[in-house]
Amino acid sequence: MGTGDADEDLIRSLIARLSNWGRFGADDQRGTLNHIGPEQILAAKDCIRSGSVVSMTLPYDSAGPQIGGIGRNNPQLFMLASGTDYLAGRQDPLPGAWGAARGMGYADDYLVMPTQVGTQWDSLAHVFFDGKMYNGRSASEVGTQGAAHNGIENYHAKLVTRGVLLDIPRLLDVDCLEPGTAITIEHLDAACERQGVQVGTGDALVVRTGFLEQRRRDWGDFGRGGDAPGLSLHTLPWLHEHEVAAVATDTWGVEVRPNEVAFFQPFHIVGLTHMGLAIGEIFDLEAIADASAADGQYDFFFSADPLPLTGGIGSPVSALAIR
Amino acid sequence: MGTGDADEDLIRSLIARLSNWGRFGADDQRGTLNHIGPEQILAAKDCIRSGSVVSMTLPYDSAGPQIGGIGRNNPQLFMLASGTDYLAGRQDPLPGAWGAARGMGYADDYLVMPTQVGTQWDSLAHVFFDGKMYNGRSASEVGTQGAAHNGIENYHAKLVTRGVLLDIPRLLDVDCLEPGTAITIEHLDAACERQGVQVGTGDALVVRTGFLEQRRRDWGDFGRGGDAPGLSLHTLPWLHEHEVAAVATDTWGVEVRPNEVAFFQPFHIVGLTHMGLAIGEIFDLEAIADASAADGQYDFFFSADPLPLTGGIGSPVSALAIR
Amino acid sequence: MGTGDADEDLIRSLIARLSNWGRFGADDQRGTLNHIGPEQILAAKDCIRSGSVVSMTLPYDSAGPQIGGIGRNNPQLFMLASGTDYLAGRQDPLPGAWGAARGMGYADDYLVMPTQVGTQWDSLAHVFFDGKMYNGRSASEVGTQGAAHNGIENYHAKLVTRGVLLDIPRLLDVDCLEPGTAITIEHLDAACERQGVQVGTGDALVVRTGFLEQRRRDWGDFGRGGDAPGLSLHTLPWLHEHEVAAVATDTWGVEVRPNEVAFFQPFHIVGLTHMGLAIGEIFDLEAIADASAADGQYDFFFSADPLPLTGGIGSPVSALAIR
Amino acid sequence: MGTGDADEDLIRSLIARLSNWGRFGADDQRGTLNHIGPEQILAAKDCIRSGSVVSMTLPYDSAGPQIGGIGRNNPQLFMLASGTDYLAGRQDPLPGAWGAARGMGYADDYLVMPTQVGTQWDSLAHVFFDGKMYNGRSASEVGTQGAAHNGIENYHAKLVTRGVLLDIPRLLDVDCLEPGTAITIEHLDAACERQGVQVGTGDALVVRTGFLEQRRRDWGDFGRGGDAPGLSLHTLPWLHEHEVAAVATDTWGVEVRPNEVAFFQPFHIVGLTHMGLAIGEIFDLEAIADASAADGQYDFFFSADPLPLTGGIGSPVSALAIR
Repeated sequence: MGTGDADEDLIRSLIARLSNWGRFGADDQRGTLNHIGPEQILAAKDCIRSGSVVSMTLPYDSAGPQIGGIGRNNPQLFMLASGTDYLAGRQDPLPGAWGAARGMGYADDYLVMPTQVGTQWDSLAHVFFDGKMYNGRSASEVGTQGAAHNGIENYHAKLVTRGVLLDIPRLLDVDCLEPGTAITIEHLDAACERQGVQVGTGDALVVRTGFLEQRRRDWGDFGRGGDAPGLSLHTLPWLHEHEVAAVATDTWGVEVRPNEVAFFQPFHIVGLTHMGLAIGEIFDLEAIADASAADGQYDFFFSADPLPLTGGIGSPVSALAIR
Repeated sequence: MGTGDADEDLIRSLIARLSNWGRFGADDQRGTLNHIGPEQILAAKDCIRSGSVVSMTLPYDSAGPQIGGIGRNNPQLFMLASGTDYLAGRQDPLPGAWGAARGMGYADDYLVMPTQVGTQWDSLAHVFFDGKMYNGRSASEVGTQGAAHNGIENYHAKLVTRGVLLDIPRLLDVDCLEPGTAITIEHLDAACERQGVQVGTGDALVVRTGFLEQRRRDWGDFGRGGDAPGLSLHTLPWLHEHEVAAVATDTWGVEVRPNEVAFFQPFHIVGLTHMGLAIGEIFDLEAIADASAADGQYDFFFSADPLPLTGGIGSPVSALAIR
Repeated sequence: MGTGDADEDLIRSLIARLSNWGRFGADDQRGTLNHIGPEQILAAKDCIRSGSVVSMTLPYDSAGPQIGGIGRNNPQLFMLASGTDYLAGRQDPLPGAWGAARGMGYADDYLVMPTQVGTQWDSLAHVFFDGKMYNGRSASEVGTQGAAHNGIENYHAKLVTRGVLLDIPRLLDVDCLEPGTAITIEHLDAACERQGVQVGTGDALVVRTGFLEQRRRDWGDFGRGGDAPGLSLHTLPWLHEHEVAAVATDTWGVEVRPNEVAFFQPFHIVGLTHMGLAIGEIFDLEAIADASAADGQYDFFFSADPLPLTGGIGSPVSALAIR
Repeated sequence: MGTGDADEDLIRSLIARLSNWGRFGADDQRGTLNHIGPEQILAAKDCIRSGSVVSMTLPYDSAGPQIGGIGRNNPQLFMLASGTDYLAGRQDPLPGAWGAARGMGYADDYLVMPTQVGTQWDSLAHVFFDGKMYNGRSASEVGTQGAAHNGIENYHAKLVTRGVLLDIPRLLDVDCLEPGTAITIEHLDAACERQGVQVGTGDALVVRTGFLEQRRRDWGDFGRGGDAPGLSLHTLPWLHEHEVAAVATDTWGVEVRPNEVAFFQPFHIVGLTHMGLAIGEIFDLEAIADASAADGQYDFFFSADPLPLTGGIGSPVSALAIR
């Protein structure tokens, strides 16, 4: 932890240097996803080689990593109609004068989940600094009815691009980075070199720490708030320079915890709020890491588009690597 | 409406002829999605021509089509933390001893929605007949904890394939098919011919009726239970023969309403329960229809993969046509 | 509707005259419920004459009056465990290694409801004026985590007192007051006289309009926001003078709608926010009115205590007249 | 634990001896609450001596005893409107063309809670045995839409009677009964004698173990499923003979855990399902025990009426001892 003053100087200096406010238009609500265009999608297409699909989404269920902190419970499903009701004769006649069922029955359910509890994208309304969110909009726009601007619906139909996996534990020949380990620019460059892959404009950078795999059966404080490996604040210039569209990791908060400076989640303050960087969390990277190591291909068609939840602060996502 | 006996004969005859129970293995939970393999994904890849992305998902919000019948309300977001709280000074100190916020704040939200209220896939646990669901499993497996088999998680990472739009109102030179209008095999063949497109093994067939667009600003009974245009029960042999993987429409229930026989949702009984056909509903097809008409390309890379909601009866989805 | 300026003068004059801020202590969070003490409870005891109990609570279910405006849906129950599951054999073995069920099963449920949708008390955190709530506390204390002060838990174990029903339609010999009809001081005095009852310090005043009964089977806009009969803003001095502890009616908002001045819900602004008056809404008064008319006894032991929902803005309630 | 066969004999013998099925009518849904009539209410009235009110309800909030087992989370409140929104200027104009706020604002909330997580009544639809619930009704009546019979609404306006506290730890001169300690008939008789109180027809028997107080700041497995002190199965004949209307304790399940026989919750099987005994759980008895010890009065007016949640399996409750 720094002294505070130096930390504030650092944060404000990074903001001054890396901010994308206004860069994509005064009304922009998509941030670095603007780096994705037809060229990137056509490049992504070329990454489909064998026609296989690998999921990077953790199942949404009661076995998830949450322990209830700050209101974040694991996903729940409630049933509006069930097969057991139907077998017990409680669905005939059908509701609404739909006629006699004559052997037919149905099940229906209700999804109840905080958007931040599993594999997810943060929206640009997720983090504020000095009263503002991305592109200078006031935090006052995010009230009980959701985000009037910068909601997750702005990411919808935009999160398809080329994805690149950088496998840091494999680079370092460990199973898992330890909590508190910061991934640096040097790690990113070394992984690119070792894997024989380049990161370029509009790419989704997928960074593996191994942490989710290690905790999969005994989550502990993995879900929220605990210490974790993750990206150093100091990688943001690199991400900015490479014009990365999105970054996703297998941890709850992308950035290393404890934080490197005396600000809470400074990578989010600079990256999400000021660069408008799309941030993905709790991605399950075990399968794609295995597949990539097996054939040496670390790029793929990255299909991880969020639901258009109007005003949403985040969204669960089916995150796929199509190869 | 038929006489009942003749209707039952028809239904049972279709089931006998079209059932896929056992076809993909005794333990199969994916049905016709088994028609999608590497070959189909590589064919889908070839449909990406200009690198554009078109959404087929209706926004999930309070402006949606639901009116509360059988427990189905429009999606709601609840906030666990807000920008207005933050501005009012209610987020410093941060929860959980995370340290002083020093200007940083955050928003967080909670998604509450029935899975069947907007653009969605039905799982193979959604409809029962004679006590059973797809592949002969008992309806008893679908209780208050969700579906022990055939849940929507089985579709995850499987719903990427070539998509083909058949635009029936454009074929018939009308804005919208009227409620009660059944789309027949003849319509499907004529649309393929007019559009210069083929439907083949593993394709996702996307059929436009125009109904969602017509009702978009004044939904009425669009959401659930009302009369609607849709696929005739008698198209199922065609879908079976063409080995379609999935079918999606811009109506609440895919099939024509009122039903053509004295069974409730017979297309679901035969198609979903017995063929194991993936069924998508409330797809918003206005933009893709316009794009397709403009350039004459009616096939695309269909990326519409559901969330892995363990035991889920359905799932909201980001449905994309990548072209 | 007034001109605005005169209305504002009126409102501010009423506030100046009737405010109880500071009256019950700088830290008070109970407002007029402070008028209830042992003397009132012993007086209430004397109203129990025959040992009968009459409910004034409308059932909480999907048949309730709500139509979904401003997020207010009718109450829902979701099942965590059901009898149909149990019959289908899905509860053996029991969860958590509780042992073999041996014939035993259970049901469990989940209550999901806005607190303002049925019979309910408003808390003193429900309405703000000029940035403040009751007793001068800032509205900033009411954020996504609920009310830091003035929450409904402050009413818990305080809402037991003598109740007095004033039956205004019976006074006027009509079934129901028409929407827009303001109940005046003259009405209240006339009803007291005709019914032979006095209203005094610490009483819960229960005022019947007949509106709920008239709309019971076809709610229309009864639930929220529609026109309604109700108490005139000008009865507040009478309520203040009589030291009423609480007032409850059979309408959604207690006060007459449309409002009598160009402020939204001025009775709430003056009465709830400044007097700290306990306000009860959507009470079902048909049965107590019939019972009272039958035996001529209009007072009763009023047992209508809210749940201690920490930080809650309102609470559903079992409201009983014990006579 | 017994051998199984002997246990089954015991359970079936107790059922044969104590069952109230049919006793209160073939359609009865209230069980032992039928013991409460005008005589009991008038006797309860006489217990109001000083005009004081003591709460027996634990606050409903995130500090509650639940740890999420079998879907039971602590209560949550979600805000539909907040003071912080209002201060940030997000509530003017008001929704629904209600006019200009002119300084007025409001908060609104949403209650989300399992009914069994805090102070609560079980309904007679909560426990099944041999396929049936109270009064011989089939468990099939309890499906995803709740209980078609025996729902908690049948208790509404019935749970007002004389209450009697039996303070077992005070009898035994300990702070708290240890988990696994069974309260016997001898304990009940001794407490009555020492406290100078009688238990009679229609009384609500409130039995203190001290367990809630001991665990209040560190719940552990208090909430559900853990070992606990509680009533012995063998007290049921005593409760039957004394014609008790209801029994409530300061534990999660009233009966001693581990169970005394090889059936899960046998007190519920015999008492709730067959006697139709009203069972209250997680009552907070610290304050009433202190008050009773101070003045030696162990009976009171017991006002603990549940919400009429149509079809509900349980209900939160404001449980009051009025003395």
